[in-house]
Amino acid sequence: MENTTSAASPITGHTGLICLLGSPCAHSVSPMMHNASFEALGLDYRYLAFDVNEETLPTAVAGLKVLGARGFNLTMPDKNLMVSLCDELSTAARIIGAVNTVVNENGRLIGHNTDGIGYMQSVKDAGYDITGKKMTLLGAGGAATAILVQAALDGLKEIAVFVRPTSRFYDRLVHTVDELAEITDCRIRICDFSDADLLKKELADSAILTNGTSVGMAPHEDTCPVPEDLTFPNGLIVSDIIYNPRETKLLTMAKAQGNPFFNGSYMLLYQGAEAFRLWTGKEMPVEKIKKEFFSDPFYSKAT
Amino acid sequence: MENTTSAASPITGHTGLICLLGSPCAHSVSPMMHNASFEALGLDYRYLAFDVNEETLPTAVAGLKVLGARGFNLTMPDKNLMVSLCDELSTAARIIGAVNTVVNENGRLIGHNTDGIGYMQSVKDAGYDITGKKMTLLGAGGAATAILVQAALDGLKEIAVFVRPTSRFYDRLVHTVDELAEITDCRIRICDFSDADLLKKELADSAILTNGTSVGMAPHEDTCPVPEDLTFPNGLIVSDIIYNPRETKLLTMAKAQGNPFFNGSYMLLYQGAEAFRLWTGKEMPVEKIKKEFFSDPFYSKAT
Repeated sequence: MENTTSAASPITGHTGLICLLGSPCAHSVSPMMHNASFEALGLDYRYLAFDVNEETLPTAVAGLKVLGARGFNLTMPDKNLMVSLCDELSTAARIIGAVNTVVNENGRLIGHNTDGIGYMQSVKDAGYDITGKKMTLLGAGGAATAILVQAALDGLKEIAVFVRPTSRFYDRLVHTVDELAEITDCRIRICDFSDADLLKKELADSAILTNGTSVGMAPHEDTCPVPEDLTFPNGLIVSDIIYNPRETKLLTMAKAQGNPFFNGSYMLLYQGAEAFRLWTGKEMPVEKIKKEFFSDPFYSKAT
Repeated sequence: MENTTSAASPITGHTGLICLLGSPCAHSVSPMMHNASFEALGLDYRYLAFDVNEETLPTAVAGLKVLGARGFNLTMPDKNLMVSLCDELSTAARIIGAVNTVVNENGRLIGHNTDGIGYMQSVKDAGYDITGKKMTLLGAGGAATAILVQAALDGLKEIAVFVRPTSRFYDRLVHTVDELAEITDCRIRICDFSDADLLKKELADSAILTNGTSVGMAPHEDTCPVPEDLTFPNGLIVSDIIYNPRETKLLTMAKAQGNPFFNGSYMLLYQGAEAFRLWTGKEMPVEKIKKEFFSDPFYSKAT
């Protein structure tokens, strides 16, 4: 099946399915983003979203396989369970322990994780090259782990990860760091989230600060993952994976202090763009998609 | 989920899935027919086709159930096996022993068969009321059985079914006739397909002749289910479930003899219209769909 037709062609019996699985997921921007991209490139697919939880995921995945779906995305709460349902995993997906993108290669399900790639691409999009530099990363949950792994794989020199020693993610983080030590040269240090002095010290020689936690996300916009009296080093890039609200307290601080900053909008865009590339072999028309669906990023472009 | 939006609205995370399962099924007109109808009525569904055979059907159906698909159609070879995968069956589907339409009522799969309804509606569309009248029906395969059952349920007085005594469908036909005798007043007689004199005799007081076999279908357009020197009684409606070729030998004979006639195009349309009504509770805009996708029926409208 060659899924290439003229743009905006109607659905026929040849039209392929790609979809999002998660619960909830009806609010997702992914259907709009991918369908607009299929249409722009004349690709004969449609992208739908299905409310599927961990209980129904194995049945849904088995069904999509025999329906011949080209692939699918996964969001909460399905990313971790999906690992065990794949026939093969990318290096990043294996180390992260979570799959957000599956490609169905003739009934063989290949699991990828494009969240970290999406973040790293959003750094580049903002105008920065952090290869060989140091990151201070807050958090060790799913998104933070994806960023940690991809940043190490992409050649960062050093990462200081701040996590509470009591975090339920702590042991997994230790394991992830061990795995990364085996296959990358990135030096990763685990730091106590409650140690404000240590945070200052690590930030002093960091190129970028990355909030990988959900602290500051709606409906808790009044919270902040760092002390509110913290002074950022001059030139430190301050980034948040949160995009709702578009301006978190963390980014307000960065803006006020004259630091470069960006929110999580384009991480969302670029994780989708990478999934799109994996399914279709084509580049998502990101400038068009930005205009249509990400028209208001909170963002200070590098000068 | 209220799947009603303005016409031609883009796919979102709320858009529902309806589909066709069969093998092959990529050539089907159903995706065009249903998607155009969703768009015309502003219903937020998309209809796709998936190549699924009997081996993969149970997995596909289980998957569609947890994906929350609103329903699906089935074509060859999946109609019979689908019976055992439904939670509930309509009377027609149960007696026919085949399901071509499934409605997913919150995880409960209700099986229907709209093929016979489609045929009966195509008779009405051609301008005829055959209630209380007699039909001569050729064949006892899937389509013929669907017509037999629906015709009996719809109040025909009498049906003469012509089948070869050696047919693999013979025993099933005997069973179907017994079942119909229990719940309808229709008198059904099983006749030997090779008895040309009996065919003449049964046609003499029939209102309609229905070819429910595939004899005459492409690539065997040169075959005919009745003797080519047969003279039809004056006024007998001659109908074919075949629509490819649009003009079968049988219909050429009818036209040449001045009998009213119609082919299977609108049976296909109306089986879809009935499925559409079952899924959406709305009437398919059939005049629009005729114009767009059934523009060239072979058809003599009643005067």
